Parts: sequence; C-alpha cells; structure tokens
Amino acid sequence: MSALLDATVASIRSLDTEAMRRARARQSHLTKPADSLGRLEALSIQLAGVTGTERPRLGATAIVIMAADHGVAAEGVSAYPPSVTVEMIRNFLAGGAAINAIARMLNARVTVVDMGTSTPVASDDPRLILRRVAAGTANIARGPAMTRGQALTAVEAGIAIAEDLAGQRVGVVCAGEMGIGNTTAASAIIAAVTRRPAAAVTGRGTGLDDAGLVRKVEVIERALRINRPDPSDPLDVLAKVGGFEIGGLIGLMLGAAKRRLTIVVDGLISTAAALLAVRFSPAVQGYLVAGHRSVEPGHAVALDAIGLEPLLALELRLGEGSGAALAVPIVRAAARTLAEMATFEEAAVSPGADP
Amino acid sequence: MSALLDATVASIRSLDTEAMRRARARQSHLTKPADSLGRLEALSIQLAGVTGTERPRLGATAIVIMAADHGVAAEGVSAYPPSVTVEMIRNFLAGGAAINAIARMLNARVTVVDMGTSTPVASDDPRLILRRVAAGTANIARGPAMTRGQALTAVEAGIAIAEDLAGQRVGVVCAGEMGIGNTTAASAIIAAVTRRPAAAVTGRGTGLDDAGLVRKVEVIERALRINRPDPSDPLDVLAKVGGFEIGGLIGLMLGAAKRRLTIVVDGLISTAAALLAVRFSPAVQGYLVAGHRSVEPGHAVALDAIGLEPLLALELRLGEGSGAALAVPIVRAAARTLAEMATFEEAAVSPGADP
Repeated sequence: MSALLDATVASIRSLDTEAMRRARARQSHLTKPADSLGRLEALSIQLAGVTGTERPRLGATAIVIMAADHGVAAEGVSAYPPSVTVEMIRNFLAGGAAINAIARMLNARVTVVDMGTSTPVASDDPRLILRRVAAGTANIARGPAMTRGQALTAVEAGIAIAEDLAGQRVGVVCAGEMGIGNTTAASAIIAAVTRRPAAAVTGRGTGLDDAGLVRKVEVIERALRINRPDPSDPLDVLAKVGGFEIGGLIGLMLGAAKRRLTIVVDGLISTAAALLAVRFSPAVQGYLVAGHRSVEPGHAVALDAIGLEPLLALELRLGEGSGAALAVPIVRAAARTLAEMATFEEAAVSPGADP
Repeated sequence: MSALLDATVASIRSLDTEAMRRARARQSHLTKPADSLGRLEALSIQLAGVTGTERPRLGATAIVIMAADHGVAAEGVSAYPPSVTVEMIRNFLAGGAAINAIARMLNARVTVVDMGTSTPVASDDPRLILRRVAAGTANIARGPAMTRGQALTAVEAGIAIAEDLAGQRVGVVCAGEMGIGNTTAASAIIAAVTRRPAAAVTGRGTGLDDAGLVRKVEVIERALRINRPDPSDPLDVLAKVGGFEIGGLIGLMLGAAKRRLTIVVDGLISTAAALLAVRFSPAVQGYLVAGHRSVEPGHAVALDAIGLEPLLALELRLGEGSGAALAVPIVRAAARTLAEMATFEEAAVSPGADP
C-alpha cells in the first residue's frame, strides 16, 4: 500500500458507542410515541455515533462527482458515446444537470473531480478539481484497467479531497460519479467481490437494449476471466476491473470516515466503491448511509453485502450523486429531530403507557 | 350540502393536460438518460398539471396540523391520555415537536388549527387558528361522532384555511393532524368506504399492546354496526365515524385543489380524509401526492383505494404531517429538475442511442 493509505486506514475509528448510548436514552424521552419516527430513529443513533454527540449538528453538504473515462466503452456497453463524460462535466459546471437542480434546493456545493477523462476539460472553474491519473482506463475486456500504482494514486486523490472538505466545515458528503462505461466496471467489481455471476449483477445502465445487455454481461465475464481479480485484495480488484473515479470514491470514503463525516452512498458505482472501501477498513461501514436503491440489479446485491438498507427507492438510474442528494433531507431530519425535539419533561406532555 | 362546499367542489378542475403534454416533451430533451430520474419524472409531469406550466415553480410550503379530540378515546383505544392532544398543540407552538424540527429544515411554516379539542388552548400565537366545532366528538362506539351540520362546519373551516394559504403564496400544503383516538376514527372511515373488515385496516396507533388492538378492532366494528355510515355519502361517513380534524383536512384538500396547490398527504388519518375528499370530487386526486406509507395496515388500503403510490416508506407512525413534510424535498426536486435542467441542445451534450 502507501504511507497515506496506510495511515488513513489505521486512523479510521469505529462509531462512538458512548454517544450512541446517550442518543438512545434521549430518543426515549422525546415528545413522540416510542419508535414512531421509524427508520429516522436508528439513523439518528448512527449520526450520534458518527459525530460523537447525542445532539448531532451536521455540517454543510458537499456533493462530490468523481469523473473518468473507461476503455471498456469501446465494447459497446453503453447507450451513450464516451464523449458524454466530458460533455456532462461541462454541464455540471454550467449548472444544467439534474444534480445541480437538486444541489440548489439543498443549498449544497457540487465539486467535480476529473480523475481521468479521455480529454481534459479546459476550465478554470474552482469547482473542477484535476486529479487525472491517465486519459481513461484500459479496456478491462482485454487486460487490467490500470496498474496497481495508478489504483493507489486514484485512492490517494480521494483521501486528499475528503481532507479538504473536512477542513471546510462539510459534515455530509454525497459520493457521486460520472463516466460512460462505469456501470460495467462497477458490476465487474461487485461480481468479483460477492462471487455472484455477472448476469446477476448487471443491468441496462443508461438504457441498453436486450442485445446490449447480453453483450455487457459477456464483456464482464471476459474481464473477470482474463484479469482474475483477487477478492481478498481491494486494490487488486480496483486495478483489474475498476475505474479511476471508483478509486477516487474509495479514497473519498476512507478519508471521510477518518474525519468522521457522514457519507451518503449513491447508486451502483458509488456502492461498488463502498464495497471495496469496507474491505480496506470494515469500520468505514458505520459512516455510510445508503441514499437509495436504484433499478440496477447489482446495486441491491452490493448494498446487502455491505449491510446497508437504502432510505429511498425511487427507480432512479442516473448517478451524479442524485440518489444520495435526494436522501440528504432525511439524514438531516434524523439529526434534527434527535437534536432539537423537546423531551416529555421539558414540554410537559404526558408520556404514554408502557406497552 | 352548503353554498361554500358546493361552490368549492364545482370549481375543482382536472389537471392541465396541455401543460402535462409540454412537460413530457421537455422531459425527453433534458440532459439525462430517458427515464433515469425514475418516479421523479412522473411526479414532475403531475406538478406541471397542477401548476399549469411545463417549468413548475412551487410556492412556499405550509404544514397544516388539524387537531381535535375524540369521544372514542374513552374506550381505551390509545396508549396516550386524551390530554395529550392539547399538550402537543402547546408543544407545536413552542417548536418542540418532531414536525417543528423538520419544518425548520424545510423553511416551512407550521399552522395549527384547533378544530375542537376538549379544552381550548389559551394562546394568542398567530400560528394557532381557532375553528372549534365542539369540545371533542361524541363516542362513535355509542352513536354518531357529530351531527351532519357539524361535519359541514368542519369541512368549511378547512376550505377557508386553504383559501388563506393560497392567498399567501403557499404552493405546497402538507396535510397533518393531531388527536388522541383519531386512528380509530380513520380506520372506521377506511373500513366503511372500502368495505374491508375492521381487522384489516386497524393498527396499533401510537403503540397499543395486543389486548388494546383487539379492543380497538371491536370498538370500530361496534361503531360501524351502530352508526351504519353510507359509503356513497362522504359527509355521512365523516359525521358518523369521523372527527373534526378529519373534516378540516377534507376541506383543506378540497380548497387546495380548487386553488391548484400541491397537497402532500401524510399517514393514516390524512389519507382517510383524502379518501373522503375524492368522494366529494374525484378531480382532487390529481392534486394529491402521497408522502409516505406508514406502518398502519389501513394506510396502504386507503392509498390503494385512492390510487396513490407513496414516495417514502420509513416505518413512520407519528402523524403531525411528518411523513408528508419529509417527502417535500422529493416533490421540490421533481419540479426543479423539470424546470431548471438544461436540454441536450442547450448543453451541447450528445443524446443517447434510441433504445
């Protein structure tokens, strides 16, 4: 590994169980029937564990979009041409994408990271961060996506970005991505780690037809056969069948967990990154919140493997962090109800009968 | 009926199908794969129909909590004493309830309407509106909840409140409630209208034990047997087994639909009111968005009967408008993505292959 990655993994702590205990006690005194806030209550306890206080105040929301290109796009595994990765980066910076509209609603910043697109975007927009590992990965249907050194560079870039965000009062990080061909890489990672057949974890991505889906499954089977990623070595899986933006997301999650930020995971690609992040450090799991369950069949498989229950199920399949961002108000509501509600004693409300 | 109710029902128009047609066309040009925003897309088309424009801008959010007491609470159908209705009104005004924490996050106002609590709350807080029909309903296990005249008064009060909100730039109304005993009334309404057995639509409310649940089912069966509400006459159902706050919610929904506001329905009680509102005017259905599916078994039955698919399923069972308010960011995101996103042409992004 490397000094930065080693040090980051070593400094990720498990959730603050003492704060969680106090939060559980506080929940039972708030002016509502016991358990009536349903899943918000368990979420609020988790947030107490993340932040180390039974009255969690979450910092600002940052939506990070890691972007990169994929050599495997040459195999016809996407309904869109590879040029769309760069075109969409321009759209993110111009504010015209779905995630921009959602971010404005949330009053959240959008940060775009070029982890390695085929052609660099010429822009001096400070919201575009250049951490280019190379001009796109190699084609995983023919060999490894990247070298082990490149995989490490990608992960380290993500760690650095998490450190920057933590220094800017960010408390909630939405882990989003953009990259034509990256559902192929993500499904390959999920198949490799969970040892499920490619067909069970592969979907239509941005809109493949039936023939395209069959081709995509074959490409993933070939990539796994040729590259033989080692499921016990997350860096190997990333290098063999991953992507630069997926490496960036892994680092982002490791760094965010180290800095005790709440990480909202998005769809298939973001969750594939999370699946590898928890293999670097199982303690990362406590900092993860699954924003939604997408229509991609591999997504539910990956969520299950990590042990995450998604908050939303809105049939999304967009990426960009959109499903993570849509869940942020629920995360914030969980924190706010725990932090701000009056207790029965404070409000002079009669508690209910013990059931 | 009455002049106000008649006029309101007569002036509810169906959704603007021409705006919906334009919205559908616009959706297909936005910079994202077709259908990739999942349920947000259909929701955005509905909002175009509600607001009459393919680029909907929703007005402010108002959370309305209709509160009243229920004579049936004397039958031991709640885990809480009836005094809690008034105590919680004070808590809402003091800002200590769950809905207040969520409302602060949304920058939404909370309006509490005393539709008839057992004792009036002494307060000059402008957020408390007094529309008291009587000091609680009669016990539905022994006779009708209220007279037909009182039912009409309750509905008219709700209509007036919707008119006030529409005059104050409100565009989204969350229909919430508070009233110890009101899940019993709501389940009785749902059983009467859908002709399902009481046991199939009755749950534990704020936290009844097994014996309490059996008693509650028996009370609802008795209420239906004694009162014989006429399912074809929504005012009769409201008068026989309803509640003043449920009447207020019906009027709120009718008035909001007339004024073309988006109505976010909450849990069991709010949805029971919606079930009667669409019997006054089927066109109301187009203005309704189901915020969530609660753990109450009658809730899913009522949602199905109206033809609503809830946005969230977070195991809530609180009321107060909490499940409606939590869904507001999703409603707003649907409107914003449709209104604000760039088209492929505007952003110079390559459209995908036709599938």
